[in-house]
Amino acid sequence: MATIKDVAKQAGVSVATVSRVINGIGYVHEDTRKKVETAITELQYTPNEVARSLYKRKSRLIGLVLPDITNPFFPELARGAEDEMQENDFRIIFGNSDEKLDKEQEYIQTFVQNNVVGLIASTNYPDTDTYRNLGIPVVFLDRTADNRPSVYSDGREGGRMAAREILARGSRRITVMRGPEHIRPAQDRFQGAIEKLKDQGIAYNVIHTSSFAFTEAGTWAKELFERYPDTDGVIASNDIVATAVLHEAQRLGKKVPDDVQIIGFDDISLSSLLTPSLTTIRQPAYDMGRAAARLLIQLIENKKVDQKTIQMPVTFTERDTTRKVEQQHG
Amino acid sequence: MATIKDVAKQAGVSVATVSRVINGIGYVHEDTRKKVETAITELQYTPNEVARSLYKRKSRLIGLVLPDITNPFFPELARGAEDEMQENDFRIIFGNSDEKLDKEQEYIQTFVQNNVVGLIASTNYPDTDTYRNLGIPVVFLDRTADNRPSVYSDGREGGRMAAREILARGSRRITVMRGPEHIRPAQDRFQGAIEKLKDQGIAYNVIHTSSFAFTEAGTWAKELFERYPDTDGVIASNDIVATAVLHEAQRLGKKVPDDVQIIGFDDISLSSLLTPSLTTIRQPAYDMGRAAARLLIQLIENKKVDQKTIQMPVTFTERDTTRKVEQQHG
Repeated sequence: MATIKDVAKQAGVSVATVSRVINGIGYVHEDTRKKVETAITELQYTPNEVARSLYKRKSRLIGLVLPDITNPFFPELARGAEDEMQENDFRIIFGNSDEKLDKEQEYIQTFVQNNVVGLIASTNYPDTDTYRNLGIPVVFLDRTADNRPSVYSDGREGGRMAAREILARGSRRITVMRGPEHIRPAQDRFQGAIEKLKDQGIAYNVIHTSSFAFTEAGTWAKELFERYPDTDGVIASNDIVATAVLHEAQRLGKKVPDDVQIIGFDDISLSSLLTPSLTTIRQPAYDMGRAAARLLIQLIENKKVDQKTIQMPVTFTERDTTRKVEQQHG
Repeated sequence: MATIKDVAKQAGVSVATVSRVINGIGYVHEDTRKKVETAITELQYTPNEVARSLYKRKSRLIGLVLPDITNPFFPELARGAEDEMQENDFRIIFGNSDEKLDKEQEYIQTFVQNNVVGLIASTNYPDTDTYRNLGIPVVFLDRTADNRPSVYSDGREGGRMAAREILARGSRRITVMRGPEHIRPAQDRFQGAIEKLKDQGIAYNVIHTSSFAFTEAGTWAKELFERYPDTDGVIASNDIVATAVLHEAQRLGKKVPDDVQIIGFDDISLSSLLTPSLTTIRQPAYDMGRAAARLLIQLIENKKVDQKTIQMPVTFTERDTTRKVEQQHG
């Protein structure tokens, strides 16, 4: 029985072109369309085969669950995953879970019903049955659980690093912005930071934040300087919150970094465009997305996987919201 | 023959719970699971019915094609569409076309193969056959074509508004950043701006930009002040480019808004957190997403549609990268 490949060969066009003609989607030159239609007739290529080939195409579909597309960190992750998938001829569809378990489960259900062959999930609930019983490979991204396939960065070390660097640059009245409690990476970096501060015997204040939304970040920044006006160093829960803290400090007439130093987390694109540009703990978001996609493809294709859990390094990205070490010691 | 609703009624649970049990997805309490399984057995609810109910669920799936998820304007649009769809019990899956026709067509094909019942597309190619021959309702978002269903804002008026306001605040050596040529809304706002400048007999310079990427925006900002160092007013192609211009101006020691005024376009979340905060022409992104979803639902449900093309107003959002009018005239 003829396959779509046979039709493509006979018509002298690509499989993609045949597919476009069959599905009536996308531009195909009239002459090409006729050639394909002739080949379909001659080879008696049947609707059944059409269905079969569509099914085959479906089976290169990947689902990606993101927790919050309005936080620029996640679109960056998604772009990495997407580019890697595209280069390997997989297609990726996204769902936005809004950090909510029920929305997340709805998306997973949708993806599974649509025959995705693999899933990448940035979830706060990696150890639920949802993921254990799926029957398709799953890679956790920016999250991890047990020994299951995952790509994440070292949040705890990132937190320690932020504390170490802000101390090395002379801050002593430090306020730590604690990220949303249900978001694990946010808690890891918080724990890392206070661990280091305690180690060094430095007292600190904590501001609790319940989301990473731009719209709310300003409120916590205000609270920070109202409650702890003598703060001379802020370890923010991410770059969005750090941006709001910088804005509020400047609004209050404080000099950054002279009066108050600020360190963010993530290194989203806008951070280098702030004035002063934001010192931050960088996560390699785009590369993390790519690594997760590569790992998932290996699992889908049953290839030997050298490393199932990939922890990527965070890096101190020194810009202008912190003082230079030389100035401190000089 | 029993339906999923009958099973739910008999078990005393929601349809969603029955669906979770059937699909083995998501947490269901063991007692509840047993109740559902008993009901399924008693009513002789069959796998065929399962398939049928899955099909029905599928048919509440919507596809959304975004051109660039790393530009914060689009996640904001998506959130609006998503919230409206969610409230109406539709699910939305995303694809990122990267402003490329072939990626866009691949996503549309993927969506159609997965039985989406409607499509929202931010496309640069609204008048291709792709969209004419789909056989499902399509709403264009942030784009429009002919008289087809669409939700967009008035870019041309936005451009005129930017020019009018920057002139009213005293800029006379104006540089206009022209957005990517293949992105229609960018061209509309550019045309609007130069139309107004010409009307007023004001000469202007133009910097061509070929993307809205954060990483490249800095290059154009540098080019702007190298080529036209006496610029005292910048009409940027969007807020990302405006952010880069602000950063570069400050790096060069220019005072904003005293030496140079800057007006952006979009009003993305970060714009109010910059220092000085960015004056911009606001598009109601979230509301545009909601309106597109509402319109699409009306089309899917064959309801009477009062208005098929919805143009939403842009508003001058005055912040601190422009001088106050009173200061000019006072």
